[in-house]
Amino acid sequence: MTAVSRIHNTSLHDKVISAEQAAAMFTDNMVVASSGFTKAGDSKAVLNAFAHRVQEEPMQITLVTGASLGHGTDGLLAKSGALSLRFPFQVDSLLRESINKGDVFFIDQHLGETAELLKNGHFPKIDIAIIEATLIEQDGSIVPTTSVGNSAVFAQLAGKVIIEINTRVPLALAGVHDIFMTGSYRSHAIIPVTSPEMRIGSTSIAIDPEKIAGIVITDIVDSPAEIALPDASTKAIAAHLLTFFNQEVEAGRLTQSLLPLQAGIGKVANAVLHGFIESDFEALTMYSEVLQDSTFDLFDSGKLLFASGSSITVSGEYYERIFADFDRYKDKIRIRPQDVTNAAEVIRRLGIIAINTAIECDIYGNVNSSHIGGSNMMNGIGGSGDFARNSYLSVFVTQSAGKGNTLSRIVPMVTHVDHTEHDVDIIVTEQGLADLRGLAPRQRAKAIIENCAHPDFRQALTIYFEEACERGGHTPHVLEKAFSWHTNLAEFGTMKPVDVPANAVDF
Amino acid sequence: MTAVSRIHNTSLHDKVISAEQAAAMFTDNMVVASSGFTKAGDSKAVLNAFAHRVQEEPMQITLVTGASLGHGTDGLLAKSGALSLRFPFQVDSLLRESINKGDVFFIDQHLGETAELLKNGHFPKIDIAIIEATLIEQDGSIVPTTSVGNSAVFAQLAGKVIIEINTRVPLALAGVHDIFMTGSYRSHAIIPVTSPEMRIGSTSIAIDPEKIAGIVITDIVDSPAEIALPDASTKAIAAHLLTFFNQEVEAGRLTQSLLPLQAGIGKVANAVLHGFIESDFEALTMYSEVLQDSTFDLFDSGKLLFASGSSITVSGEYYERIFADFDRYKDKIRIRPQDVTNAAEVIRRLGIIAINTAIECDIYGNVNSSHIGGSNMMNGIGGSGDFARNSYLSVFVTQSAGKGNTLSRIVPMVTHVDHTEHDVDIIVTEQGLADLRGLAPRQRAKAIIENCAHPDFRQALTIYFEEACERGGHTPHVLEKAFSWHTNLAEFGTMKPVDVPANAVDF
Repeated sequence: MTAVSRIHNTSLHDKVISAEQAAAMFTDNMVVASSGFTKAGDSKAVLNAFAHRVQEEPMQITLVTGASLGHGTDGLLAKSGALSLRFPFQVDSLLRESINKGDVFFIDQHLGETAELLKNGHFPKIDIAIIEATLIEQDGSIVPTTSVGNSAVFAQLAGKVIIEINTRVPLALAGVHDIFMTGSYRSHAIIPVTSPEMRIGSTSIAIDPEKIAGIVITDIVDSPAEIALPDASTKAIAAHLLTFFNQEVEAGRLTQSLLPLQAGIGKVANAVLHGFIESDFEALTMYSEVLQDSTFDLFDSGKLLFASGSSITVSGEYYERIFADFDRYKDKIRIRPQDVTNAAEVIRRLGIIAINTAIECDIYGNVNSSHIGGSNMMNGIGGSGDFARNSYLSVFVTQSAGKGNTLSRIVPMVTHVDHTEHDVDIIVTEQGLADLRGLAPRQRAKAIIENCAHPDFRQALTIYFEEACERGGHTPHVLEKAFSWHTNLAEFGTMKPVDVPANAVDF
Repeated sequence: MTAVSRIHNTSLHDKVISAEQAAAMFTDNMVVASSGFTKAGDSKAVLNAFAHRVQEEPMQITLVTGASLGHGTDGLLAKSGALSLRFPFQVDSLLRESINKGDVFFIDQHLGETAELLKNGHFPKIDIAIIEATLIEQDGSIVPTTSVGNSAVFAQLAGKVIIEINTRVPLALAGVHDIFMTGSYRSHAIIPVTSPEMRIGSTSIAIDPEKIAGIVITDIVDSPAEIALPDASTKAIAAHLLTFFNQEVEAGRLTQSLLPLQAGIGKVANAVLHGFIESDFEALTMYSEVLQDSTFDLFDSGKLLFASGSSITVSGEYYERIFADFDRYKDKIRIRPQDVTNAAEVIRRLGIIAINTAIECDIYGNVNSSHIGGSNMMNGIGGSGDFARNSYLSVFVTQSAGKGNTLSRIVPMVTHVDHTEHDVDIIVTEQGLADLRGLAPRQRAKAIIENCAHPDFRQALTIYFEEACERGGHTPHVLEKAFSWHTNLAEFGTMKPVDVPANAVDF
């Protein structure tokens, strides 16, 4: 089968061009949109060609995506100086460095909101969208690949569309997608999902064929997800959480099939999902963003009935295995636009159990998911806020300490707030689990310090909390010491009490 | 007409008891729920009688409501030491003092979430609910008074229900309510509101008559809302916002009827609503929480077509006038449960323009709505987070400085985050308006400092921001100085640079 046979609409055959020809359409200051969600289904040929072009011919674009692109794209674009503004998410070390230097402007955005903001005209109009495709249907509509992300709304809003047909993607992916358009004001649609498996849309992205400016054939595989196997610490977190779920079942609040699960990316969330395999829970479902290796392990174990997400982001080994026999999974999966997977109304209606990773939590349960030391961007908030805000249960997991126990991930006050204490129900570290439901701030502080803090930091947290309570307040703080742990870390390399000059801030 | 004629179900006539008899049903550690939303439609007889009983016979209850109760209730209960835990909102000075001392535990909660948390069993079971009523229907169902709040879910979940029939409430209120139950997992309902005026429920609250433990007759009027007439500063804020809305109409993003409006309580929001009366905008609608004096002025001016809310909270003068001729407004109003008025899905679907008041904003657009000096609770987050998070446009208004310009309401870093920068689109002070849409943090800081900060503080904010940028970061901060403005205020009575000892933190 030839590559062009994936273009079922033969009138489009003469639109096939090279990646370099496609990249030549970009001009300085353009707003470019690309498919791609957590490294899955991104533009790997055209954006790469553009990054190379810019090295000879400097220019800058605004780049909007579903979520992060692969390392070959976001990193190379940043290195080439090709980006002026990037949103809504990234995970690349080179791009991150440019963002933190102030060389690239970055908008850190709830992943469920980008489509809405674009439709509302709150951002400039998209000039060109690049969408990776498995194939083009007879009617010209696009069957996406391993992600949907914001591709459907990009196809709708962009002036021109370039399609990257990826011949490495198995044709079996066709049919797994569920494309639903949420509409615009004043005729915004109800998103009618009432169970994770419910199909509400079509299997391909409708597009005006006149807008197709070029079709590029590629065979570059998605950047693989990095594998992080469970270790003693992440297994302990998983065990605490499973014990808690068992208690909830005993209390009659949940059943053995729990409620639909969402799990963020990362080794802790991965360990938690693996923990279910050995558990008594059964007939589980997922209504998540990213379907990872652990999702397929859960399918294979028979524990998981269905999974909805916006991408399949797996390791190289799993990619080969899953797509060699995709029909085995196809009926158990739907890949949807991220304004459907992350929709507040669906998350509330289904009663999601949301499990996300914190960079740090404070003693009152505020969570920082995005910043290091208050100033430096790590990856972004991603979809964690979409899920935490409207879930049945909002769980945040983190290891209690890091960097050889020089830093505590439970701190007096987080240096950046992504999730306010109103939206955080459960905090779990390898030390234990704090159930914050129904607790006032002073009670939350005790529960978090006692259950979650690392023993090396527990006393210092208690001293801070007691001093704060002596001053009074609903959420007692000692403002001049609230960040002393972080400034100590920056200055002395540890949050622990150190021999410091007498005039320095103590704790 | 006698009071008892408001009980259309005659088999309930023998359940009439005194407020003191009702209050005698409470025992130590009970969980009590009461109707009432921003001082409207609260239990004014039974809770008052209980507060008096506790003065003789000490005991404590958990009290959950819709939102704030009147001063005669929350204040008296706090003074009597009758409360161990209170949620989800309050505005009383005596109760606030007890909360900040740590004598009363308080859970500051999104007003749209309380019903959900109760239904999910995340809080202890409600023993007794007290619901103020206009009348009891033949089928035993309850017609509420000036608010709905959480009353419907209280009636559903409580073991016993006490009804307070308030004979001062006009019978014309019957028919204005729209009671819809959102259901429980796994059969959570779609909330089908697609326009502000759409009726989705019934006009009264269904209840199992067996649960009615007593009916108390009262004639105590709601605590009146405090009136804050527009002044030069709040009029300037309104003018900036109206200019912005006009620009949005010119840009084709909005029409002359805008999108449904939500406005928080307070003199700034009130001034903004009054600003519409003299404007060219027309055929406006509201999908809000609280219908205030300004709502009725907008009706009278012909500018407002319809208003949906969870309560009618007006001044004494307006109360008399509105309810003397309520049929004039009745068809233009629906009073609904707060998990419908504040539902994420409806707010997103209708495209609400949300206008709420900030206590302070920081240079990156994070907003503090609830705390003074990081520790002390003012009122609570209320519904501001429900609306800001999912609105079409999230606007926060505040005066740029306060207390004789000794404190800036634009600060380097807010001491408590209720609304993260992701959820804040527009900040307005009397100095001007910062449109933050599509801006990265460093751009947001410039827009906020230039447009919103008071001139007395603008230079100091710029110095902080520039020092932070020299250190670098996506959201540059100087952690050891981030709260120096607040610690200076506490120590020296001003955020302005003062002659301080050489070793003190400078700015």
